[in-house]
Amino acid sequence: MITVALAKGALLKDSVSRFARAGLDFSTVLDTGNRQLMVPSPCGRARALLVRNGDVPVYVAYGQAQLGVVGFDVLREQQMPVAHLVDLGFGSCHMAVAVKEGNGYVRATDLPPHCRVASKFTNCARSFFDELDLPVELVHLTGSVELGPITGMTEAIVDLVATGRTLRDNGLIEIEELFQSTARLVGNPLALRLDRGELQKIVEAIRFK
Amino acid sequence: MITVALAKGALLKDSVSRFARAGLDFSTVLDTGNRQLMVPSPCGRARALLVRNGDVPVYVAYGQAQLGVVGFDVLREQQMPVAHLVDLGFGSCHMAVAVKEGNGYVRATDLPPHCRVASKFTNCARSFFDELDLPVELVHLTGSVELGPITGMTEAIVDLVATGRTLRDNGLIEIEELFQSTARLVGNPLALRLDRGELQKIVEAIRFK
Repeated sequence: MITVALAKGALLKDSVSRFARAGLDFSTVLDTGNRQLMVPSPCGRARALLVRNGDVPVYVAYGQAQLGVVGFDVLREQQMPVAHLVDLGFGSCHMAVAVKEGNGYVRATDLPPHCRVASKFTNCARSFFDELDLPVELVHLTGSVELGPITGMTEAIVDLVATGRTLRDNGLIEIEELFQSTARLVGNPLALRLDRGELQKIVEAIRFK
Repeated sequence: MITVALAKGALLKDSVSRFARAGLDFSTVLDTGNRQLMVPSPCGRARALLVRNGDVPVYVAYGQAQLGVVGFDVLREQQMPVAHLVDLGFGSCHMAVAVKEGNGYVRATDLPPHCRVASKFTNCARSFFDELDLPVELVHLTGSVELGPITGMTEAIVDLVATGRTLRDNGLIEIEELFQSTARLVGNPLALRLDRGELQKIVEAIRFK
């Protein structure tokens, strides 16, 4: 039985359609009435685990799922020991530094040393500012990071930007990009090593568009 | 201007009704169509910040909100420097250790040393198992913690239990309680120290039922 960890939310629909090419039908997870977290494929040889974005690498790293689909942003943030197999192309966004419009910063190095920066991705933010050799105080938030600069708690944010609408709606502008992100197919290293071709076949079917 | 950090979700309705007693009307945050994160009170002397549960102590600790309402579970997990002012009584639940039904464990010390335990509250779980002197490997998950034992990834979970329905639905049983939790009114220590009576009046109005 092959188990695939799928992230709830924005990546789910495209993830399901990519696995369909490999003959694995997980479309039940898209039913709005679905409350199951473990969804078997009708073919009987696979099942999907429906988990939060940030939990996909955990299930794959511990081998409870042999494969998983998750955003590169999560992989960068968590650094879990999983194999990166395929860049799936969808779920495109980027990690960026943003500040309040009109405060004059045009790049990250303009930020005052020891200023506060809010983020859900504090590991990504830390390594970015460490590389710039700019000391900042990171404030970890779990949602609505844009409130950081709006309330005056932080000078900047590091957050994912897809369309840029959230930034605009909140009077923020992007001043620097950390990296691009898309959905990735990841695998459990040991499961891939012991694979007798079954996983590889799925990976290949998903790889070729 | 007084700013109050309110947690989205289960505690919101009761939080709003307790502040109404103090003459602060934040009922706009309950409108299903509301998308604002900063909601002014019609009286003009206060506003609510609508944030995630886990972010309430952050806004209060940094002084962006002078008061906040959040579950004791979050306060225990995060240990942010905020003043605990009033036990509001609502939002009652408890933190518990749960295992798969039928695996024979009747208390936490029955768990095998170095077994895995999944939790969203890894700080609470760590201090609980440290006190028992039972070494366990904590697996941090962000949601659906019950999948840990179901998939066989972990032997137990540490999670919040309100009605117990989620545990029952997933074939899990509770074997030990860590602590009880209810909603708490918290405050920024410095704001309380500098208060000229305005915050105190609100706290008193909220305290007495």
